[in-house]
Amino acid sequence: MNPSLLRKVLDEAHELKKLYKEKPVPISPKPLDGVSVSMIFEKRSTRTRVSSETGLYKLGAHGLFLSSQDIQLGVNETIKDTSNVLTRFNDIILARVYKNETIVALEEGAPGKVINALCNLYHPLQTLADLQTLEEKWGKGGVAGKTLAWVGDGNNVIHDLMLGFLFLGGSVRIATPPGYECNAGVVKTCQDFLGPDKAANLYFTTDASEAVKGADVVVTDTWVSMGEEDMYKKKVAEFAGYQVTEKLLSGANDGALFMHCLPRHQEEVDDEVFYGPRSIVFDEAENRMWTVMATVLGMRGLSVCGAK
Amino acid sequence: MNPSLLRKVLDEAHELKKLYKEKPVPISPKPLDGVSVSMIFEKRSTRTRVSSETGLYKLGAHGLFLSSQDIQLGVNETIKDTSNVLTRFNDIILARVYKNETIVALEEGAPGKVINALCNLYHPLQTLADLQTLEEKWGKGGVAGKTLAWVGDGNNVIHDLMLGFLFLGGSVRIATPPGYECNAGVVKTCQDFLGPDKAANLYFTTDASEAVKGADVVVTDTWVSMGEEDMYKKKVAEFAGYQVTEKLLSGANDGALFMHCLPRHQEEVDDEVFYGPRSIVFDEAENRMWTVMATVLGMRGLSVCGAK
Amino acid sequence: MNPSLLRKVLDEAHELKKLYKEKPVPISPKPLDGVSVSMIFEKRSTRTRVSSETGLYKLGAHGLFLSSQDIQLGVNETIKDTSNVLTRFNDIILARVYKNETIVALEEGAPGKVINALCNLYHPLQTLADLQTLEEKWGKGGVAGKTLAWVGDGNNVIHDLMLGFLFLGGSVRIATPPGYECNAGVVKTCQDFLGPDKAANLYFTTDASEAVKGADVVVTDTWVSMGEEDMYKKKVAEFAGYQVTEKLLSGANDGALFMHCLPRHQEEVDDEVFYGPRSIVFDEAENRMWTVMATVLGMRGLSVCGAK
Repeated sequence: MNPSLLRKVLDEAHELKKLYKEKPVPISPKPLDGVSVSMIFEKRSTRTRVSSETGLYKLGAHGLFLSSQDIQLGVNETIKDTSNVLTRFNDIILARVYKNETIVALEEGAPGKVINALCNLYHPLQTLADLQTLEEKWGKGGVAGKTLAWVGDGNNVIHDLMLGFLFLGGSVRIATPPGYECNAGVVKTCQDFLGPDKAANLYFTTDASEAVKGADVVVTDTWVSMGEEDMYKKKVAEFAGYQVTEKLLSGANDGALFMHCLPRHQEEVDDEVFYGPRSIVFDEAENRMWTVMATVLGMRGLSVCGAK
Repeated sequence: MNPSLLRKVLDEAHELKKLYKEKPVPISPKPLDGVSVSMIFEKRSTRTRVSSETGLYKLGAHGLFLSSQDIQLGVNETIKDTSNVLTRFNDIILARVYKNETIVALEEGAPGKVINALCNLYHPLQTLADLQTLEEKWGKGGVAGKTLAWVGDGNNVIHDLMLGFLFLGGSVRIATPPGYECNAGVVKTCQDFLGPDKAANLYFTTDASEAVKGADVVVTDTWVSMGEEDMYKKKVAEFAGYQVTEKLLSGANDGALFMHCLPRHQEEVDDEVFYGPRSIVFDEAENRMWTVMATVLGMRGLSVCGAK
Repeated sequence: MNPSLLRKVLDEAHELKKLYKEKPVPISPKPLDGVSVSMIFEKRSTRTRVSSETGLYKLGAHGLFLSSQDIQLGVNETIKDTSNVLTRFNDIILARVYKNETIVALEEGAPGKVINALCNLYHPLQTLADLQTLEEKWGKGGVAGKTLAWVGDGNNVIHDLMLGFLFLGGSVRIATPPGYECNAGVVKTCQDFLGPDKAANLYFTTDASEAVKGADVVVTDTWVSMGEEDMYKKKVAEFAGYQVTEKLLSGANDGALFMHCLPRHQEEVDDEVFYGPRSIVFDEAENRMWTVMATVLGMRGLSVCGAK
């Protein structure tokens, strides 16, 4: 991913939403007729599954859902053999996995044909949806000069969002409890992108209210990911003071927005914020669909809005 | 549901069956092109799943199957949040669930977009299929003046069938063993619809042969629903005398038909009746598809037969 | 299956691959528009599932995946009732099952509409893919006069492959360890087809290198099928000397090819052969798709290449 590719995908997503949501013609265009995508889910996910399978259908493509019951990566043959075989049938593999190594191994057998639909390190499809949603509120290019605050775990969601928000010219302030810092490699990539002049555009703290100061949008995520249920009590204790509330948001800019990639739990954000006027969480969820559509179109070298 | 809506859906189902089954044109019409339906199955079901997913495909729509492994309603977020998110992707939610409360919560997040594909209280799609099947035998409007006998558990299937059969002008006679009576609220709705003049059109008894007297169609269902397997022995004992046999049917009208929504077990009906000339169970199963197609078309404000 | 039907299906598969892989037109032809196939998987399989579901999609049809969680054959109703009902919704049933009896029972309820996608005795779809792959290397009709060696378990895969290879005029040499011989009935069918004059075209041994002598293609398969995991150690010991290596292949003809229906394990074939120039395993996997497409087209009386 780079700034110009990000811009192109977001432009496409905005256009797709206009074109398909308003259904200007009785039969929607099917630019991906005949294209098939195997969708591998080591980790269950309603949003990723439904947004992808539905979005592919709208474009005329076919998303073939493979749950962890249907395919066991690396158990019966190498992952590279599996992705090699799958791309004899399917044009693209979309994979939601535990380890980034799995994505790398899939790519080895199917170079340029793998979509990372979440791994322990990255969640690029979520970032695309988040940025489309913010541009809907702030206008295209509106991220430039804005500040995003992250309050929570230094996880895959903020890894890509940090990079994407910086790419579009914004600043990022991140609060994570001790021991939950972002991945050092990802932070280094972001710092390298910024260079010394703009280094101040990326700020880290362990104090949630410090991060929120001057923010135009505040973002959090579940503290306890799938597969970590046994750590629930411990994590909730360690994240004390991180619940997003109107009180916490008092230091943010007027009209600051709230995002959460769902599913949401009470401990991360209270009802007042989550269901209140700042919250753009359902738009954010919807945009998972338009952005994955744009991503697949781009991988096939296609565009509905004339982008090259 | 009301009598005129019921009439409209049945008319549509009859037309769809003609139009799609006979395939008059090389490419079938796709009035629901671009329409997507998430299909949530808390309870597994071959018939409901296959009839819905196939019927949607025939209309050009996409049915997205979510098993209880793929989505866990109410576990990780509120049901209302889930249905709110799903309808950002999908036009309709079809849900087969344990509790009616779940249907109600889904509707809260997605008003007017939820199809009840079975809950503990209702099974409207089965009723539509049953009535289409009877009209195929008796002619459109042929239910008027006819008598339906139910012999079995006072469950979701008879709840809707009772109401639908009365709507079309028929009489209903219901035998249930003590302790297995129909839901009082549903019975009240039916009695209110009939009013005092036609109160005799709905009759309850605990004696199976008494219910069957003068019946034009006799209907039963599995005694032991999914999730109740541990009650098998107890229930079979309590339903003694309720097996549908030619002997039991001796008091019914000449040419009385037999229906069962399947899957069927020996204890409810013997082979002679089930595979005999009275039985219209496989037509009934097939019509699950044409009626769910008509239902979805109607929810989208569409019709293949010119109905408004 | 008979020689002329085999020829017809292979011709169709070759044409489909040309037509759809090269995508000569923006919208691929959809000869199976409106056709639906229920795909029952008692045994999980990535290759069979993905090749079938994708191939059906390419032809405009819909493959409806039913896992062992979604449908339990013979548990809640007779298998015949199930297939009877399914074919009220679906045009074809594709079933991957444990026992051949299950295929027979499905056929009883849906004569002429069932595709055997693997049972304990047969695996016809794999044979079709294998033969298409060999004809791609040897030219159409090129199997005549060639020799195939099987080194491994006398299982469902070799049962159909033996017959198909003989149908096309080749010879077959089979090595199986004592106790793992091919099914006597299948062998009898092959011998009857050959008659006394050509009886030498089918040869059995327990010595792997003996079977490989003069072979133009060497084929093996997993030794331990799904559901037999507890027999792993025992089987690996009994198959000593059966691993396909360059050393074992030294007695084969120059340029002898290697096939394996995947997933592959080290014990059956080493990396040198599996990833070496003889290996056509990934072409073989891909052709699962083109041949199942040809099979379904044929069952619907259709052809993209003008075959009758």
